[in-house]
Amino acid sequence: MTEDTTNEEARHAAKMAKKKAARDRMMERKEGEKGLVIVHTGAGKGKSSSGFGMILRCVAHEMPCAVVQFIKGAWDTGERRLLEGNFSDLCQFHAMGEGFTWETQDKARDIAMAEKGWAKAKELIRDPEIRMVLLDEINIALRYDYLDITEVVDFLQNEKPEMTHVVLTGRNAKEELIEIADLVTEMKLIKHPFRSGIKGQAGVEF
Amino acid sequence: MTEDTTNEEARHAAKMAKKKAARDRMMERKEGEKGLVIVHTGAGKGKSSSGFGMILRCVAHEMPCAVVQFIKGAWDTGERRLLEGNFSDLCQFHAMGEGFTWETQDKARDIAMAEKGWAKAKELIRDPEIRMVLLDEINIALRYDYLDITEVVDFLQNEKPEMTHVVLTGRNAKEELIEIADLVTEMKLIKHPFRSGIKGQAGVEF
Repeated sequence: MTEDTTNEEARHAAKMAKKKAARDRMMERKEGEKGLVIVHTGAGKGKSSSGFGMILRCVAHEMPCAVVQFIKGAWDTGERRLLEGNFSDLCQFHAMGEGFTWETQDKARDIAMAEKGWAKAKELIRDPEIRMVLLDEINIALRYDYLDITEVVDFLQNEKPEMTHVVLTGRNAKEELIEIADLVTEMKLIKHPFRSGIKGQAGVEF
Repeated sequence: MTEDTTNEEARHAAKMAKKKAARDRMMERKEGEKGLVIVHTGAGKGKSSSGFGMILRCVAHEMPCAVVQFIKGAWDTGERRLLEGNFSDLCQFHAMGEGFTWETQDKARDIAMAEKGWAKAKELIRDPEIRMVLLDEINIALRYDYLDITEVVDFLQNEKPEMTHVVLTGRNAKEELIEIADLVTEMKLIKHPFRSGIKGQAGVEF
């Protein structure tokens, strides 16, 4: 073996080691990123507003995203106007809860509305361009069994594209959902001004 | 007493009753609105992002508002860019935590930075035009006694304009702050993907 060959081999080994290190770093980065199933539940404040905050973060990063609103009035037209007026190119907004009557009148109609919302949600989640889908107050529809928890969980586990984040909000998140979620936060009520006669106010509640 | 006088008196009484009812309604409305001291604490997610969501709600309602960021990196430049790029007419953004060294190097300098942030916060809160001020991660500065909790509590109770909302975020909110707050939410960590090797991602964490 000549000295030249030895040098050549050493150079090659060093080059390969460098390549491998770069690849390892890349894989490490790749493994560190994943589309998350995120749940905001609990009786406290901030479930919808932090969902809204995350959607705006996506907008800030120019990541296409979407909102499906399952309950009427959970979001005021203000937020909707903000998204539709300024960022409709990046964020789709679908208010499916407009027609809900909930426990009041027409259960069959409410179930049909929830299913329509879920059909839209699936379409948005399947779209590989969309990076985050917020299903605002879907937990309420799941709680009343207006949507089948098994179907929702199965879809999130098997059909959600790997890199897509799905955020599900609302009180009383079902155990099956918490089970498969990556990130679960319980917003716990410590103190609430409604108890001392203060009503919902612009900017705070809606 | 003539019939006319009686009628006159009855009319007057009815008019007064009507006035009183209108006034009562107005007072009721007034009493139902109040600038709130809002605290987001706990180890869970959503403290800053729901603060960001509330600020965007204010923007949507065209209510002037402001953010003072006490910790570097709590908000990415994305959110900042979104606010500064699109809504700088409605929302002031002050990142005071850029220079923090925290427990690492220079405590005196960190205290000076925290005090600078608090001075800006007071100026913004005192401004009667501004309807909401978000003091993001101020609880950290309070926890390490970089700011005096007694002074902060005293200011919020005695100098905050009646209709101004102040939102204070960060883990380990001091008991004295919780005591005087109107709305306190603990974001409780139920499940977190960092535990399974997933790192902070755009749109979710920043």
